[in-house]
Amino acid sequence: MTRVPRFSGVLVPVLTPFKPDLSPDTQKFVQYCRWMLDQGVDGLAVFGTTSEANSLSADERMALLDALIDAGIPGEKLMPGTGACSLTEAARLTSHAVNHGCRAVLMLPPFYYKGVSDDGLFASFSEVIQRVGDSRLALYLYHIPPIAVVPITLSLIERLIKEYPDTVVGLKDSSGDWSNTESILNAFPGFGTFAGSEAFLLATLRGGGVGCITATGNVNPAGIKHVADNWQTPQADELQAGITLVRKTIQAYPLVPACKRIVAQFHDDVSWAKVRPPLDGLGAEQSSKLLADLEAVDFAMAPLKVEMAAQ
Amino acid sequence: MTRVPRFSGVLVPVLTPFKPDLSPDTQKFVQYCRWMLDQGVDGLAVFGTTSEANSLSADERMALLDALIDAGIPGEKLMPGTGACSLTEAARLTSHAVNHGCRAVLMLPPFYYKGVSDDGLFASFSEVIQRVGDSRLALYLYHIPPIAVVPITLSLIERLIKEYPDTVVGLKDSSGDWSNTESILNAFPGFGTFAGSEAFLLATLRGGGVGCITATGNVNPAGIKHVADNWQTPQADELQAGITLVRKTIQAYPLVPACKRIVAQFHDDVSWAKVRPPLDGLGAEQSSKLLADLEAVDFAMAPLKVEMAAQ
Repeated sequence: MTRVPRFSGVLVPVLTPFKPDLSPDTQKFVQYCRWMLDQGVDGLAVFGTTSEANSLSADERMALLDALIDAGIPGEKLMPGTGACSLTEAARLTSHAVNHGCRAVLMLPPFYYKGVSDDGLFASFSEVIQRVGDSRLALYLYHIPPIAVVPITLSLIERLIKEYPDTVVGLKDSSGDWSNTESILNAFPGFGTFAGSEAFLLATLRGGGVGCITATGNVNPAGIKHVADNWQTPQADELQAGITLVRKTIQAYPLVPACKRIVAQFHDDVSWAKVRPPLDGLGAEQSSKLLADLEAVDFAMAPLKVEMAAQ
Repeated sequence: MTRVPRFSGVLVPVLTPFKPDLSPDTQKFVQYCRWMLDQGVDGLAVFGTTSEANSLSADERMALLDALIDAGIPGEKLMPGTGACSLTEAARLTSHAVNHGCRAVLMLPPFYYKGVSDDGLFASFSEVIQRVGDSRLALYLYHIPPIAVVPITLSLIERLIKEYPDTVVGLKDSSGDWSNTESILNAFPGFGTFAGSEAFLLATLRGGGVGCITATGNVNPAGIKHVADNWQTPQADELQAGITLVRKTIQAYPLVPACKRIVAQFHDDVSWAKVRPPLDGLGAEQSSKLLADLEAVDFAMAPLKVEMAAQ
């Protein structure tokens, strides 16, 4: 049995807003996180790929987490990304999150060197866990081979679960490959497996997984949460088809800039569209087309805009 | 004309020694850098891929550079790697190097996101250069697609040279693809192009390039320097064949662990073999085979061992 209650449901890797000088807009970030929790999602996977976390320094990430905690966002709702190429920084970020009472962390493998062995990756996660040395740590592995290129294989998962059964409690599978998610679900029943996209939410829950952690949760939190809440009802497949359509519409564009552009539109704040290099914002033409595409699939986020403005 | 005299010849991305607790062994690092300069190499590309720099935190990298400078290693011999996924950290590391009088820096592109546009990469390098805001900055681009996966294309180089002619003064090509190096040499005469392996040293110099920055410089510095010094003599091809044979012998093994294992052997200090996760040290069998392979090609580093011990 783990000592920390596990996460399940819908978690959102929240976008990080930037000021014109590219520094994080802390106030807007806190307000957005609060608003996101008000939408009913189960947790905030701050500092994920969608959050441009690896475009931030470790100090910037920690300052943003400090601000969330200071603002009263409960640690039990937070699953910060704390992976880094450097094990020194991964351990530092993870300790910082644990000391803030974060319910879990989501950890990328070190992603600079490619073709590294499972032995090397095991040693890396192991070293971080031992440096943190805190029984409160609950760690979700972050498998995202299209971006990190360094995969988390089934044999690595097995070894980590065996060595750290109370710490390594789950995984986010952003491979985009359902057969991989299915293999994990079959191999490790009871492990907290999240899909990395809501397109696989229903399939993941039916296969014994626990939910999804998804970029487009920034845009469609209530819709996705509705599927998670109703996955055992007769309407589940129809509801899933609805959120899948929205997801596919958005992911036809570069995902992070597209999510930021939509949030800018629906929260009526153009500054939200700003990304840090090396990402690129959408151009005017792409932006118009994206918004038109969303309208064409009858996606409306307008009510959320009103709630946000009212805060 | 650039304000900073450019590098040329043979630069070594020096290995980073670790203590048993995986912290950098600063004293051994300083001693090794001094010894390496005594071998006659033209500069030290500290904090490169071979140095496991991305497995270190920014603070660890800066502390090691502080120690080198404090120990009297001249900044004019140093080309620290200062690239990072986060532009905050890339700018901080670069400013730190410039303020220490380092003659140049070697900069990776931000390497987390894949498939980013040249616009995004241009914005990233540009932002770092502007944040540093120092006319002393001389920047070499670091093209290493097998590891970073994010390439530095010819059109990106062209754009950066055009915008920052006094700052973006060269490149290290670790693509392992001679046709790419050749394209760069042909497209940008006068640009400071280094091969990323001594196997291409003679070809690079004959094509108008300036030298090589090579991992195996840690093992064969004098031999490689000898080729650079004699590239216009009738013996050049024969000398080149000799260093290529040594290189090929070593790169049949994982390169960083192999270099460390050889240095451990020839400097008679087993602790040199230690790597940071996610890299893996060579096993006993691989180690023996590597050393036997080197003997079989008549490679001897023994005299260097004596000089090192005498320091």
